[in-house]
Amino acid sequence: MCRWIAYSGTPVLLSQVLFEPSHSLIDQSLHSRMGVETTNGDGFGIGWYADESVATPAVVRDVGPAWNNRNLREVAHHVRSGLFFAHIRAATGTAVQQSNCHPFRHGRWLWMHNGMINDFRLLRRDLAVAVDPALYPDIEGSTDSELMFFLALTFGLTDDPPGAVARMAAFVERTGHSHGVQHPLQMTVAVADGERVWAFRHSSEGRSRSLFYSTRVETLRALHPDAAFLQEVSDDTRLVVSEPLGDLPGAWNEVPENSYGVVQPGQDAFHAFRPDLEQDVIRG
Amino acid sequence: MCRWIAYSGTPVLLSQVLFEPSHSLIDQSLHSRMGVETTNGDGFGIGWYADESVATPAVVRDVGPAWNNRNLREVAHHVRSGLFFAHIRAATGTAVQQSNCHPFRHGRWLWMHNGMINDFRLLRRDLAVAVDPALYPDIEGSTDSELMFFLALTFGLTDDPPGAVARMAAFVERTGHSHGVQHPLQMTVAVADGERVWAFRHSSEGRSRSLFYSTRVETLRALHPDAAFLQEVSDDTRLVVSEPLGDLPGAWNEVPENSYGVVQPGQDAFHAFRPDLEQDVIRG
Amino acid sequence: MCRWIAYSGTPVLLSQVLFEPSHSLIDQSLHSRMGVETTNGDGFGIGWYADESVATPAVVRDVGPAWNNRNLREVAHHVRSGLFFAHIRAATGTAVQQSNCHPFRHGRWLWMHNGMINDFRLLRRDLAVAVDPALYPDIEGSTDSELMFFLALTFGLTDDPPGAVARMAAFVERTGHSHGVQHPLQMTVAVADGERVWAFRHSSEGRSRSLFYSTRVETLRALHPDAAFLQEVSDDTRLVVSEPLGDLPGAWNEVPENSYGVVQPGQDAFHAFRPDLEQDVIRG
Amino acid sequence: MCRWIAYSGTPVLLSQVLFEPSHSLIDQSLHSRMGVETTNGDGFGIGWYADESVATPAVVRDVGPAWNNRNLREVAHHVRSGLFFAHIRAATGTAVQQSNCHPFRHGRWLWMHNGMINDFRLLRRDLAVAVDPALYPDIEGSTDSELMFFLALTFGLTDDPPGAVARMAAFVERTGHSHGVQHPLQMTVAVADGERVWAFRHSSEGRSRSLFYSTRVETLRALHPDAAFLQEVSDDTRLVVSEPLGDLPGAWNEVPENSYGVVQPGQDAFHAFRPDLEQDVIRG
Repeated sequence: MCRWIAYSGTPVLLSQVLFEPSHSLIDQSLHSRMGVETTNGDGFGIGWYADESVATPAVVRDVGPAWNNRNLREVAHHVRSGLFFAHIRAATGTAVQQSNCHPFRHGRWLWMHNGMINDFRLLRRDLAVAVDPALYPDIEGSTDSELMFFLALTFGLTDDPPGAVARMAAFVERTGHSHGVQHPLQMTVAVADGERVWAFRHSSEGRSRSLFYSTRVETLRALHPDAAFLQEVSDDTRLVVSEPLGDLPGAWNEVPENSYGVVQPGQDAFHAFRPDLEQDVIRG
Repeated sequence: MCRWIAYSGTPVLLSQVLFEPSHSLIDQSLHSRMGVETTNGDGFGIGWYADESVATPAVVRDVGPAWNNRNLREVAHHVRSGLFFAHIRAATGTAVQQSNCHPFRHGRWLWMHNGMINDFRLLRRDLAVAVDPALYPDIEGSTDSELMFFLALTFGLTDDPPGAVARMAAFVERTGHSHGVQHPLQMTVAVADGERVWAFRHSSEGRSRSLFYSTRVETLRALHPDAAFLQEVSDDTRLVVSEPLGDLPGAWNEVPENSYGVVQPGQDAFHAFRPDLEQDVIRG
Repeated sequence: MCRWIAYSGTPVLLSQVLFEPSHSLIDQSLHSRMGVETTNGDGFGIGWYADESVATPAVVRDVGPAWNNRNLREVAHHVRSGLFFAHIRAATGTAVQQSNCHPFRHGRWLWMHNGMINDFRLLRRDLAVAVDPALYPDIEGSTDSELMFFLALTFGLTDDPPGAVARMAAFVERTGHSHGVQHPLQMTVAVADGERVWAFRHSSEGRSRSLFYSTRVETLRALHPDAAFLQEVSDDTRLVVSEPLGDLPGAWNEVPENSYGVVQPGQDAFHAFRPDLEQDVIRG
Repeated sequence: MCRWIAYSGTPVLLSQVLFEPSHSLIDQSLHSRMGVETTNGDGFGIGWYADESVATPAVVRDVGPAWNNRNLREVAHHVRSGLFFAHIRAATGTAVQQSNCHPFRHGRWLWMHNGMINDFRLLRRDLAVAVDPALYPDIEGSTDSELMFFLALTFGLTDDPPGAVARMAAFVERTGHSHGVQHPLQMTVAVADGERVWAFRHSSEGRSRSLFYSTRVETLRALHPDAAFLQEVSDDTRLVVSEPLGDLPGAWNEVPENSYGVVQPGQDAFHAFRPDLEQDVIRG
């Protein structure tokens, strides 16, 4: 299992979100409270969108623990971004290597995941074969998470993120069931295109890994007029996280089971997530 | 491209072969004379057979250059083996990660490779899909070399190494040709099962990477009565190498184009290697 | 803080001691019970004595966590030794780098440490300046542990290990006190020369980190006639560990405060450890 | 030996300088033309000044080769800076570890070096002891280069860079001579404080490693009206490099022996560098 953070809003130093909170992601790498594992020390990654002149988001990943990585600390304390992902990994069987670290990138798109495909070894080939042959050569690692990304891309992620993720989830579940796996999928996924962030919480058994989103900033400011960070960021600043970054009352709200949210310019939104419906899964 | 060494004979400290010769593999990692690249600094690996009580050979691999790796130096100076492989990598496009370093292992079998599948991205999916579904989940990396190993395993490597490698090569070439690749395969491959070593030299275009085997020890002893190392090792000690480890006259002989040799107890042997024949390629 | 193991006795695969016990050192790297930190993920190291033809012990160290390191797993499952050290590190401020990982080596000698010099930054220069100038250039890292080793070497470790360690401890404490540090030293240290192992437990405040030694094998065999491992090893096989490797009743005994033990051919022995006595500290 | 680049001028993506030129620093890591070693694969580092709100420059360093490091590539392609350093290392005996990679940082100051202190092991302790005791605890690595930085800091670097570097060089030479080392120092050093860059070329034997500075941009524009990069950068943009980044005629000028230059707002300047003069070297 893993832990992750997605930030969208006023450009800040990454460290303000990744290092400074009392129960920051870095703290979670050693002492996760809600994760299946308390230690998430099998690699990490950050992905951030820089200015518009750069076509793709940056992705920096490494195989050691986040808590002692100096380069992560350096980048986080010297790079600003208004939209970034961070992920810490607890490996569940696959190799500890850079290409298995999140986030994954395809063009302008970032993807990260917490959870797992149960009996992944059993399903891996069937899932891989379903990846668009034009995309297949870009698979670099051996994780379920990367394969979920490639399946979502195959199923139309760049045109219709919620639909593509639903089709991916439905396909994983159908494939799992055909191999006798009772609860094939457990996932909280974040996707971004540089403008919006989609965050999904779903599991076959209906007991998904934890996922939270931050309360609207103007509400939080009213509750906590002394919190300096809240004065610095815009009203539409939003965090989606595997577990709360601290104990600020009123700051964190659980993402409901089997739902997804969109963080975007204008009004954020919540929707049901239904991979179990009959889906029109078409191979790319 | 890469460089490699296979040793079979009197158990020696790995360092006697990997570090001590004047143009050792470690020297080749910085200053290869015959390689396509002079620098082979994108990872390395060693594989050795320990005593019989241990079921599998050991494989130690890392992503940095061999020349400055202390753990490689430590292991090589403190471990003895009578059958071992060593490999230094010059990446040709795929990630520098442990799972892309040679040798690869399956049960008692070791595999290492120098060369490439041309237009590998174009062929990768077709090759992967041909891997035995029972083996597919064990693929960890993203190289052509690992996939060649899995194809050879699929085509019967553990029962008939030369036949399986020929079928693998034929399959790669047929797949390449079907995608319009003129010369799909360039390879020197070593395989071992703990008793024997098979070494193959082949390329679609008939201009294969360099490969050499050492002259019989008793002949060398007669030529070089003062060479201490030759006094220590048995008559049947044999090296197969990408390029000679030094300039000892009479010590090295080129493996002919499109052939393979077997290093084994008793008489070593050479044979023609003909993947171009009509092969009975059967999926495992 | 850290955790460590010293093994002396019948040659075994390192994995039998490092990986197989229920609360093995590898398990402790994620879930230490008695350590100051539950996670010891800031590097690891093993040191082993190979056969007599090799002058020095091997030392393999790396900066990632022990629990996910494949090379550690490979070496441990394929190398036998009758005298070896293993260490997992939880950094206390100094860099996570290979040269800060234990064990440290000097000629035939190995050294590893759990604990710390309090206010080390304050004392570091005074301690370093006291190192024998002939040894000083060999300092590679930045830890208190390595400096303690070099001070012990300076004070005669290779001639009189207990005396030299006592002089080192006294010197650290005197230096600490001169800088106003109340409790300068906290240490459990293991030293070996290839024949014997010395294990020290000491702290300025008299509340030292945990340290245990295993009960004599013949006693354990009588208690646990079904334990297979005990049938394989000789009577004089002995382990000294930061915390017990499992819950076998009667197997583990605490090393007393301010004492040291010697594991050696013949009768093992315990002695008081008194760095507080007037010591004849002479610069090497 | 090593290679390095210092850039000062119009903020650009680091990749425009580090990756894009035909004989870029990344290319030099594999194929240096003027270095003592053609391969500089023992680690790398970059240091850059971000916006004014961040007190210190960022330093990202790693132990593998620059040519295959993805994080270096990512950071370079997504971070802009108007003042940055980059360094590739060829180790000369000391450990390949992050703390031995350049640039080194102290507060707002960056330091990088190509060259060596001859017989460094012989001199190391005397040099270390001369470091200001208040600075000594911050020494993390084991290189001559880092020690030169700490000596320069001890001798007043932050107040008078040229004077402090001269005093450092004089001290190294005097210390070397007292140990019978004929030519103690070989150095090209770059120092920056976020506003200015100082670049020194000096060696005891008067045959210093290569060092070049770029021709003024307006001159280059007149020579090469079609060079796009030259249109984008300001007149005062300047590069100082170990070896030219390409073959653009008129672009590169050798820094004279025993001299130093200052790149600064306003007029850049050259001066003689005379560590051999009687210097008032005072221990901090």
